[in-house]
Amino acid sequence: MTTLLYLDDIAPGQVFERGSVTIQTRDIQAFAEKFDPQAFHLNEDAAKDSIFRGLAASGWQTVSITQRLLVEGAAPFAGGVIGAGVELNWPKPTRPGDTLSVRSEILDITPSRSKPDRGVVRMKVETRNQNGDIVLSMVGKMLVFRRPGQT
Amino acid sequence: MTTLLYLDDIAPGQVFERGSVTIQTRDIQAFAEKFDPQAFHLNEDAAKDSIFRGLAASGWQTVSITQRLLVEGAAPFAGGVIGAGVELNWPKPTRPGDTLSVRSEILDITPSRSKPDRGVVRMKVETRNQNGDIVLSMVGKMLVFRRPGQT
Repeated sequence: MTTLLYLDDIAPGQVFERGSVTIQTRDIQAFAEKFDPQAFHLNEDAAKDSIFRGLAASGWQTVSITQRLLVEGAAPFAGGVIGAGVELNWPKPTRPGDTLSVRSEILDITPSRSKPDRGVVRMKVETRNQNGDIVLSMVGKMLVFRRPGQT
Repeated sequence: MTTLLYLDDIAPGQVFERGSVTIQTRDIQAFAEKFDPQAFHLNEDAAKDSIFRGLAASGWQTVSITQRLLVEGAAPFAGGVIGAGVELNWPKPTRPGDTLSVRSEILDITPSRSKPDRGVVRMKVETRNQNGDIVLSMVGKMLVFRRPGQT
């Protein structure tokens, strides 16, 4: 079990890591059919002639898998993984057979002025494939609670 | 059929709209089981005592549904909906029974200096529920191609 952390327990520079999820062609196609029905996410032949030069996962599937790994330990906050806002980009696509893992690092912590039981934690999140290539880079503002009785 | 647009066809201020998708409790739970297994997305009773005060969809499910509506017409680009980077936040949660629709507006267009066949289009995307509340606000940098033969 991961120890769940309160705002009081975290500091800038702290790093959390979690791996891994492997994604197959059928997973890429199933997500795309439901949420992102574009040829380069659905059909290997059509994808070859696309900007991706081969089947690529929806960027939102890469994000969703990352969220799973954050919940499973790469963002071990006692109140859960609650994002207030996010900036992200996808330096490379996720491909069939890729194995993804996540590294997150606390950037800074801003206690709430109006609500003393919580604060906003900015966290940098990078998702890499088995070759170490970054497939998702994200900076999220996370809502994190103080330990009960500390406010 | 939506007419698909090239970079040559779009201009700042242009608006696209697409509706709608209705989301039920079972959809929220199914997405959460796969990608965001937290009590406030899975269990109605546990969610009542959470910061969401009731079952809420994963923010990434709201984004994924938005992507579907972008692909289906709210971002009718000839080369597809290809995001280079995104900033987003969730002003309100998506709830069971919500019906979501998307409005997008072209902010500005930057032709590529190195690749004359394409440009980056910044687009503001808002997803609203049936009451007009914004559940997702996003600014995306989209890759859009010029009409073949225009470069």
